[in-house]
Amino acid sequence: MTETAPGAALLESHGEVLDTASNALATREYYSRYPESPSPRVYGENAAQDGRSAFEQSRNSAYSPLSDQPSTGTEVGSEVSPYGPALGVRYPELDIEAGVEAARAAMPAWRDAGARIRAAVCVEIIEQINARSHEIANAVMHTSGQPFVMSFQAGGPHAQDRALEAVTAALVEQERVPASVTWEKPTKGDPIRMQKDYRVVPRGLALVIGCNTFPTWNAYPGLFASLATGNPVIVKPHPQAVLPLAITVSIARDVLAKAGFDKALVQLAAEGEPVEGRDGLAKILALHPAVRIIDYTGGPGFGGWLEREAAAEGKLVYTEKAGLNTVVVDSTDNLKGVLGNLAFSFSLYSGQMCTAPQNVYVPADGISTDEGELTYEQFGEKLAGAISAFNADDARAVEILGATVNPDVRERATDVPGLAQRLGGEVILDARPITHPSYPDAVVVVPALIGVDAANLPAYSQECFGPVAFLIRTESTDASLDLLRSTVQEHGAMTASVYSTDEEVLEDAREAAADAGVALSENLTGQIFVNQTAAFSDFHGTGANPAANAAYSDAAFVANRFRIITSRRHV
Amino acid sequence: MTETAPGAALLESHGEVLDTASNALATREYYSRYPESPSPRVYGENAAQDGRSAFEQSRNSAYSPLSDQPSTGTEVGSEVSPYGPALGVRYPELDIEAGVEAARAAMPAWRDAGARIRAAVCVEIIEQINARSHEIANAVMHTSGQPFVMSFQAGGPHAQDRALEAVTAALVEQERVPASVTWEKPTKGDPIRMQKDYRVVPRGLALVIGCNTFPTWNAYPGLFASLATGNPVIVKPHPQAVLPLAITVSIARDVLAKAGFDKALVQLAAEGEPVEGRDGLAKILALHPAVRIIDYTGGPGFGGWLEREAAAEGKLVYTEKAGLNTVVVDSTDNLKGVLGNLAFSFSLYSGQMCTAPQNVYVPADGISTDEGELTYEQFGEKLAGAISAFNADDARAVEILGATVNPDVRERATDVPGLAQRLGGEVILDARPITHPSYPDAVVVVPALIGVDAANLPAYSQECFGPVAFLIRTESTDASLDLLRSTVQEHGAMTASVYSTDEEVLEDAREAAADAGVALSENLTGQIFVNQTAAFSDFHGTGANPAANAAYSDAAFVANRFRIITSRRHV
Repeated sequence: MTETAPGAALLESHGEVLDTASNALATREYYSRYPESPSPRVYGENAAQDGRSAFEQSRNSAYSPLSDQPSTGTEVGSEVSPYGPALGVRYPELDIEAGVEAARAAMPAWRDAGARIRAAVCVEIIEQINARSHEIANAVMHTSGQPFVMSFQAGGPHAQDRALEAVTAALVEQERVPASVTWEKPTKGDPIRMQKDYRVVPRGLALVIGCNTFPTWNAYPGLFASLATGNPVIVKPHPQAVLPLAITVSIARDVLAKAGFDKALVQLAAEGEPVEGRDGLAKILALHPAVRIIDYTGGPGFGGWLEREAAAEGKLVYTEKAGLNTVVVDSTDNLKGVLGNLAFSFSLYSGQMCTAPQNVYVPADGISTDEGELTYEQFGEKLAGAISAFNADDARAVEILGATVNPDVRERATDVPGLAQRLGGEVILDARPITHPSYPDAVVVVPALIGVDAANLPAYSQECFGPVAFLIRTESTDASLDLLRSTVQEHGAMTASVYSTDEEVLEDAREAAADAGVALSENLTGQIFVNQTAAFSDFHGTGANPAANAAYSDAAFVANRFRIITSRRHV
Repeated sequence: MTETAPGAALLESHGEVLDTASNALATREYYSRYPESPSPRVYGENAAQDGRSAFEQSRNSAYSPLSDQPSTGTEVGSEVSPYGPALGVRYPELDIEAGVEAARAAMPAWRDAGARIRAAVCVEIIEQINARSHEIANAVMHTSGQPFVMSFQAGGPHAQDRALEAVTAALVEQERVPASVTWEKPTKGDPIRMQKDYRVVPRGLALVIGCNTFPTWNAYPGLFASLATGNPVIVKPHPQAVLPLAITVSIARDVLAKAGFDKALVQLAAEGEPVEGRDGLAKILALHPAVRIIDYTGGPGFGGWLEREAAAEGKLVYTEKAGLNTVVVDSTDNLKGVLGNLAFSFSLYSGQMCTAPQNVYVPADGISTDEGELTYEQFGEKLAGAISAFNADDARAVEILGATVNPDVRERATDVPGLAQRLGGEVILDARPITHPSYPDAVVVVPALIGVDAANLPAYSQECFGPVAFLIRTESTDASLDLLRSTVQEHGAMTASVYSTDEEVLEDAREAAADAGVALSENLTGQIFVNQTAAFSDFHGTGANPAANAAYSDAAFVANRFRIITSRRHV
């Protein structure tokens, strides 16, 4: 591909992208490289059909693009679409020791290529991923259960923007230290002069542990942050969401090879069926001595284990788990906007986003609105009505709700009255099952709303992942903010949101959010939703509360993935 | 002090310093703010005498500058100078729970002051520390056993430069994210416009655990990195090196109070006599739930415990422990320079620096020099001769050697022939005790040199802290470099050094150092020594090998001590 250093041609093509992205990251102004519309005008007339065909071709067969990985010879794969059909894709099982050795052998040349070449190669990988956005969207849809447009956007361009953000953050950080300097110390006689060379070296092998609901969006930041800083990466997808990352890994390997690097810099470790009494693959890989960096998205159980056990082994552990996403409602001059915005936030992917609101605090004596004073009960009715109305048309609703991802989530929504009773709350809105017009086996659910009293802390102080939210009756907005502060400090949250027309309340909310360590959205009544963060501008997570120990993508997310080795000599 | 925000006047005074220091940190060119010469021309005619008097006045009395800390009412303190006399300083024992509460209460105002005000206040603290450099030098000398000039330089201006470096690194990192941005996303209709405010919030309470040999130099980076990023700090000195940090903490508290902040942002936790069967104070504080950040310098035992146990509790742990500092000798065109430089490196503070060389690899068939070929044995003789000659004059030698810091170190040097026999080596140069002309009780030792064969790995693959180094006979320079690589990867090192006239060997040494994750000094034959690193240019440690998990002061050292909390709203 190039007559000079491997990857140099890519540096020529992508240097400008890197500069633009670096500037965007510094200003945090709006920037997106990858168009979020799946429109044929953007991605090409045949893109949708081609993507769909490529996805279908992968089904019920051995996944050949990864046949060159070191393999045990066994094939694994048990993906079943939340929309019904089994995918039937069979992945080669990674021979862990051979994979680790291959990764190690691949590292020096990648390290020595330097930060900018690495960044350019990473951009090329992302560009090639972007070109296959429709295929990946189908894979994301049929592993996560996201509706199609969301699968396209969140699984495609939004994930790609986050990938580029991680590459950019990593590049900026690596370039902060110059390659070389002449150091001249004045003395009484001649100055002492030394040349000092600073060399970026990677930590070692990185592991990315993917999740079921956002296989690409949540895996890309860690994958690209580690790769861009010189570390080889093993990607361990969720057993039910392998294909989107298999496509990703195969693209990365192809681009790396074409640029003159070793494919073993990125490998997929697909997992077979769990074996009773045997550690899962994630645990085995996490404790492998060669693994130095771990990025994880998923439940707090295994995430907490990693934060304890893998961290105690000296590995860098970046987690995004879950928490009690919180909305404080105080007052509004746009009730319709509040209800519409919240209804969408609850409904999108049936609340199965790590950022979806769960706990909505409303004062018992009600709130002021542009439609008059509303009691807690009245607001509850209005919100329930908004959720119902938003999802009234089944055919349209499924395109927002998607499918429930697993039996746990489904069970939670199956008997909301029973759940409410167990928790000591009352049903404000029961979950409503919808039959998907195209996928009759999909379990699609309009979210439920359960009312509880603030005093009933156990009811709402654990994560209730999926289509159930709580409307919590508090003594006052001050009490709501206190609960935001205390519950998030203890249990974490990925998001928080406040509605108020009172500047003082908003200021108090900012204080509570700062104390709790959670990002705050204020008075969202339009087309921005608390669930969604924009790459290059919004941090995803804060790393300041128990929901996540890191944020996409600040300096702390990248700065420790590499180290600087100096060599100095007199000149 | 100011009619506007607390600390604003300091920002006016120190803004330029911060800009200059930031620029120096970015370029890594030579920069030092605090003059290293203790000369009266620099620090004032009476500075030396005043400093000495201030030190003497602290002795044999209760340390009153910290009497306003929350105290248990007990006084603690058992410092005995390595030069002989007990210091007799009695410190108020910190009431931990009251201290933690006070620190927590102090945090919000410090957080809300913002990064630049905090940096300016930190600079003022360092300026005031600088003004008391002579007093601190006496305190460092009589706790660490360093010779006076080294106590002054390393304990004073060099430590202050490292403090300023940490403040600067912290400021740069906090200012990378703008305070506010207008984010404007184009849509088909009107663009979506949001204001996003980014707020720096601290992690929480920080703990700095000091060491005996470099009480200020090794404590300042963590102390100032945490403080500058908004975290209150409890400083837990080594029980035998309290006074230098007591002075430091009292200065910090005074400056903070004068700038309008709470003194409780910096507190001293002096430790009483160890109680059999009870955890030491460092362990108690490290496991306190309020403590979120720990900086530690000291032995690998407790350092490793922190890396495992405190890290598993989700605390950020920055350690500097110890390792096998390595010299590879291949060839030279300046034998005299090599010998003189190495003799100084071994002798300075009798090898009691975490950066002092321990393992010197020399090929069995010898090295080429400008004085002809030298066999391993001949080089050993020459090196032994150089160490002896360098320390021939007792009165001058003690000003380099200082005093041995503790019984462990003394014991190691007491019976070098016995040690050599146990290790299966031979004595090339026995340790030579010197009687200090002014301090007859000090145990002063000219370092010893033990010869061992490379095959005898156990002999030299553990740290031998203090005045004993190993001359290791290898098969070849390649073998020496392989040993550098493997021993440092396994056991760590703070420093490495190579002597060669062959560019290929130097290149191989750079590769070995990069693989091992240790900084390399090449052909040091003049007034720069492998033991010493320059703030703003050389990283101290790399964080890439087991000797230390962090480096003074790169982005990774500061970036995770704070988090960013966003609040966003439509505009």
